[in-house]
Amino acid sequence: MVRIGIDAMGGDFAPKNIVLGAIQAYARIQPKTRLVLFGDKSLIDAECREAGFDAAKFEIVHTSQVIGMGDHPAKAFQQKSDSSITVGFHALANCKIDGFASAGNTGAMLAGAMYTVKSIPGIIRPAICSEYPLLTGKTAFLLDVGLNVDCKPDVLYQYGLLGSIYVKHMMGIDNPRVALLNIGEEEEKGNLQTKEAFKMMQDTTDFNFAGNIEANHIFSGEIADVIVADGFVGNVVLKQAEAMYVLAKEQGIDSEYFNRFNYEIYGGTPVLGVNAPIIIGHGISSPTAIENMILQTEHAIKVRLVDKITEALDK
Amino acid sequence: MVRIGIDAMGGDFAPKNIVLGAIQAYARIQPKTRLVLFGDKSLIDAECREAGFDAAKFEIVHTSQVIGMGDHPAKAFQQKSDSSITVGFHALANCKIDGFASAGNTGAMLAGAMYTVKSIPGIIRPAICSEYPLLTGKTAFLLDVGLNVDCKPDVLYQYGLLGSIYVKHMMGIDNPRVALLNIGEEEEKGNLQTKEAFKMMQDTTDFNFAGNIEANHIFSGEIADVIVADGFVGNVVLKQAEAMYVLAKEQGIDSEYFNRFNYEIYGGTPVLGVNAPIIIGHGISSPTAIENMILQTEHAIKVRLVDKITEALDK
Repeated sequence: MVRIGIDAMGGDFAPKNIVLGAIQAYARIQPKTRLVLFGDKSLIDAECREAGFDAAKFEIVHTSQVIGMGDHPAKAFQQKSDSSITVGFHALANCKIDGFASAGNTGAMLAGAMYTVKSIPGIIRPAICSEYPLLTGKTAFLLDVGLNVDCKPDVLYQYGLLGSIYVKHMMGIDNPRVALLNIGEEEEKGNLQTKEAFKMMQDTTDFNFAGNIEANHIFSGEIADVIVADGFVGNVVLKQAEAMYVLAKEQGIDSEYFNRFNYEIYGGTPVLGVNAPIIIGHGISSPTAIENMILQTEHAIKVRLVDKITEALDK
Repeated sequence: MVRIGIDAMGGDFAPKNIVLGAIQAYARIQPKTRLVLFGDKSLIDAECREAGFDAAKFEIVHTSQVIGMGDHPAKAFQQKSDSSITVGFHALANCKIDGFASAGNTGAMLAGAMYTVKSIPGIIRPAICSEYPLLTGKTAFLLDVGLNVDCKPDVLYQYGLLGSIYVKHMMGIDNPRVALLNIGEEEEKGNLQTKEAFKMMQDTTDFNFAGNIEANHIFSGEIADVIVADGFVGNVVLKQAEAMYVLAKEQGIDSEYFNRFNYEIYGGTPVLGVNAPIIIGHGISSPTAIENMILQTEHAIKVRLVDKITEALDK
């Protein structure tokens, strides 16, 4: 039995979009998977009723508080002890659920992860990892996209390992190519941080290092499956990539490729390096984004992603 | 009399594209402007002849050496003393030309600037500044795009001033809005560098600070005319922006907006904070890009850009 925890109160359109997304996911999850919704039971029941869905197919854990998007993450996580996020994380830490997904307050999700399940031993800093479309029709992965905005080179090195394991097990790509986002392809290019990280990665056997990659080459898929950057740079690249979708749309361009920059296709952003599968969704997640986030969480549980990372660090 | 120096040997398609660009520019420069080409006289003459253009309309300074794209910038600048770049910079330092433009080895151009005309007093670090298209039909400016990849906050602050002066005088925008590229709009967002830079910029009267800007908002023009970033981040954003043009083209999309991401429209990248107008073009510059680079150099001379920066720092 796999149990996926879902924060029914997280996101700009909660609980409606979350419940609708969970209903959509229900039709696609494995027979032995249970969806556990954390939130206001009467509101969840009402959304199920409105959608003509039997709420008894979910497990609902009633919570009376909500951590808002504007709340101070760490404070709210500790003070709002009956919030959907806080109760969800305690369930996760107590193994009552096997993974936890939320489109709510990102900072509170990260605080919850660090306070309860904590980092995997050996992890310097966890990372969040985003998927983006390649011209080949496949996708590639970028990390970190905002968790650690001041990274030392050894953190970047470890991101290479984390990204490699994630893509290997979640996407089934053997020996994925990992590149370091930089401002030139040559070894000597970069700032102090990337130059040092390049040296550390150069001869590694921990992952398949493909060298430096420039931002104009990350979309072809010719060089890499995983792109490593610090959280500041990764976040900038991700937001600019999201802009490409919006700009194309505003120009009335209906391009199959640019449409694939719509984040809704990709579910959420996994927190890598913590002791449980934790996925954070976009605040404005649609039901489809929530559905994908839930399926992604199920997949991470199924492939035992956390064990794979733990084993790699234990070597 | 204004004299614009042009490196006829710089760029992947030199001297052909440079000479053709200079011929195009010749038709558009002011009557009192002279174009001074540095390079192999026989090759320049041959290109003029082939184009049916009277080479005597140019002033040609014969040079026997070329700094290649693969040459070590600083070494080549000093050792190849009869190269077009080295001779050009000495002419600039001796006031025989009023500005210098090249699509050649960027590092050698920067080395030349620092060895000969040098930084304006008070400048911590010069910057290079790129133009990119806004949805409004206008353009905005991003700096630094690659000169200083490890920036202290006070350098970012000064980039705000440099960008503001450049856009005011080159684009005729009074009191241009300057924003700090960051990963959130709120004051407390960012890495150590941007958080500190925000504090320095917050109450400045040196330029019109518009706050933080995220990478997905830089294209609307709603927030800022000038975007400040360190050279690493700025270079990444610029290359990703260039990719947007290429990706659209590869998708067979003929969008007026995405077409405006073609660098050829914008001439070159000015080096701001040095004691002369210096413009560096893309290595693969077309004749039109060269033409625009020359007109941009003329404009910088005409508006006395260097004096404006010097005066602002002298306050």
